[in-house]
Amino acid sequence: MPQFTSFDYQMMSRAISLAKRGTYTTTPNPNVGCVITLGDQIVGEGYHRKAGEPHAEVHAMRMAGDKAAGATAYVTLEPCSHYGRTPPCALGLIKAGVKKVICAMTDPNPQVAGRGIGMLQEAGIEVLVGLLEQDARALNPAFLTRMERGRPYVQLKMAASLDGQTALANGRSQWITSPQARRDVQHYRSLASAVLSTSQTVLADDASLNVRWSELSTDVQADYPEHELRQPTRVILDRQHQLHPQLKLFAADGAILTVAQQDADLCVELDDQGQLCLVETLEKLASEHNINHVWVEAGATLAKSFIEQELVDEIVLYLAPKIMGSDGRGLFGALGLTDMSQVQNFTIKDLRQVGPDMRVVLTPKR
Amino acid sequence: MPQFTSFDYQMMSRAISLAKRGTYTTTPNPNVGCVITLGDQIVGEGYHRKAGEPHAEVHAMRMAGDKAAGATAYVTLEPCSHYGRTPPCALGLIKAGVKKVICAMTDPNPQVAGRGIGMLQEAGIEVLVGLLEQDARALNPAFLTRMERGRPYVQLKMAASLDGQTALANGRSQWITSPQARRDVQHYRSLASAVLSTSQTVLADDASLNVRWSELSTDVQADYPEHELRQPTRVILDRQHQLHPQLKLFAADGAILTVAQQDADLCVELDDQGQLCLVETLEKLASEHNINHVWVEAGATLAKSFIEQELVDEIVLYLAPKIMGSDGRGLFGALGLTDMSQVQNFTIKDLRQVGPDMRVVLTPKR
Repeated sequence: MPQFTSFDYQMMSRAISLAKRGTYTTTPNPNVGCVITLGDQIVGEGYHRKAGEPHAEVHAMRMAGDKAAGATAYVTLEPCSHYGRTPPCALGLIKAGVKKVICAMTDPNPQVAGRGIGMLQEAGIEVLVGLLEQDARALNPAFLTRMERGRPYVQLKMAASLDGQTALANGRSQWITSPQARRDVQHYRSLASAVLSTSQTVLADDASLNVRWSELSTDVQADYPEHELRQPTRVILDRQHQLHPQLKLFAADGAILTVAQQDADLCVELDDQGQLCLVETLEKLASEHNINHVWVEAGATLAKSFIEQELVDEIVLYLAPKIMGSDGRGLFGALGLTDMSQVQNFTIKDLRQVGPDMRVVLTPKR
Repeated sequence: MPQFTSFDYQMMSRAISLAKRGTYTTTPNPNVGCVITLGDQIVGEGYHRKAGEPHAEVHAMRMAGDKAAGATAYVTLEPCSHYGRTPPCALGLIKAGVKKVICAMTDPNPQVAGRGIGMLQEAGIEVLVGLLEQDARALNPAFLTRMERGRPYVQLKMAASLDGQTALANGRSQWITSPQARRDVQHYRSLASAVLSTSQTVLADDASLNVRWSELSTDVQADYPEHELRQPTRVILDRQHQLHPQLKLFAADGAILTVAQQDADLCVELDDQGQLCLVETLEKLASEHNINHVWVEAGATLAKSFIEQELVDEIVLYLAPKIMGSDGRGLFGALGLTDMSQVQNFTIKDLRQVGPDMRVVLTPKR
């Protein structure tokens, strides 16, 4: 582990802060920030905003201009080495005459994976890796999941009363949670690459499942102006081809991917329960559509499948302070457990009040 | 509203802090603190520790000695005017030659109710009332409920999985919540005047329902030394006379009150559901046994009755981050609701993590 100075820590912290500005818009690319210093002065800085637009290093080099010669570049992720929609950043840094590059982490993208660092070193540039690596990883949990595990990061949204009911026995459920909780859901959608649901859910509520900017909280609106709004791809499991063009789903902005065995945007096999295979769906969303981050909003049946197949990275559960009675519809359906040792356990990652409701974020214990 | 000085506020704040030291032990009496000042010096202070022991004013006057003459007394509650186990404090203050008395609030106890203030004024002492009254009321929510509403303050303890289950279908439930949550329950018991349960609950677990000092958290132990331990009265609804002397309940320290229609410590009528009348039970606990504060620990049936009859001041609900499935036993049983407008709503008063579990404190919206 190289020795870093407190100036190095400050500069990488700043690069991490810059990277966060891309939070809502960079997908499928990662959030990256870059600071270029000459002596003890910042001469350039930038972040990646959107796929197809310049990388963080390019913005920072443009700002630095001639002052990049002999400078040090702090980058939250290893500079890229491949020609994509933009030329490789490693080459750019070499051409600009940068003397030293400090990266928070290597890029697990198989197209990079150390080759960016290699190019820089071959050109005689000093490269140090690992400064604030944990913080840099936390910028991109979803991108890293896709790169490292070949499937998107999966968040499962659920909502229920205090006593675990998602609807009354007759199906009535509007509204269990508060307008504040529903605004919070809009925020989660806005952070996701894709919103995944089922045709049953879409048909039941004629749901559009897109992001409505006007329903985001004012804090989020301040960070994410309306003209930058990116709609997550809506992925709808539609095994029985029930979707039809009159649905609000199709009128709302944003891409739609239908999933079925055939005649769909994404074709997958059935699993041994006769349901569309979720593993294959997730793997294809990652490999064929570069989807980093899936926000699942559906009913108890799909939720149960995701949990049983251990495909959930986080449950985001809204609980309204209401009593609906155990004759309603339960969160996860019947599980037939006979011993407490069979019970699935979770860890609380975050717990807070959202308006009059509570929100608990859980990660599975495995 | 009289004008108070910032010195007055400081002294009453101090009296309120002192009063809190009696939290675990004063029941059925209220928590009361007293500070006596001469000029800008504190010359005496004290708090009420336990029924039968001196009141706060007596401790403070003893400490002040001769310096009480011409002094000002700050008391969190109107000084008493009646001969109980101790002579009236109003008389004591008059005899000590105190010049001025500032009370945070009048005493709603019908044996006092302004007469303490009257005695002081007749003796020519200046009396001011209302300084930090809200904070003083918050010292004694349970005592005030008994005095003002003729029944104890009722806290209902519940515990369930995330999906609202209190046990698996076969009744297994040990343990849904963590040792930390169970220690927290010990704390709530230690704060209550009485723990109320049913013979079914006692028989099912051979529960002793007392406070086990060793299971209190170290923070609570530091404030509440073992030799001061007060056991809440255990009130057991035993309609069918199922309790028997071999139970751990009877081996454990602390008083027991059985409740039934006849041949019990407390006799009450049946309600129109054929259950022991809860309203009558609570009223008799208040009027015949001076019980300020009841902590209810029982099953879904009793919980439902307390809630339906609007007898609950607070629900303390522990939710363990576990999924048990909707085929388990639900928190409140079937309610037969057909419209969301029939759903009972609560307000979240407190929400926090307790070990790996969450604890939410709710008050009914009426």
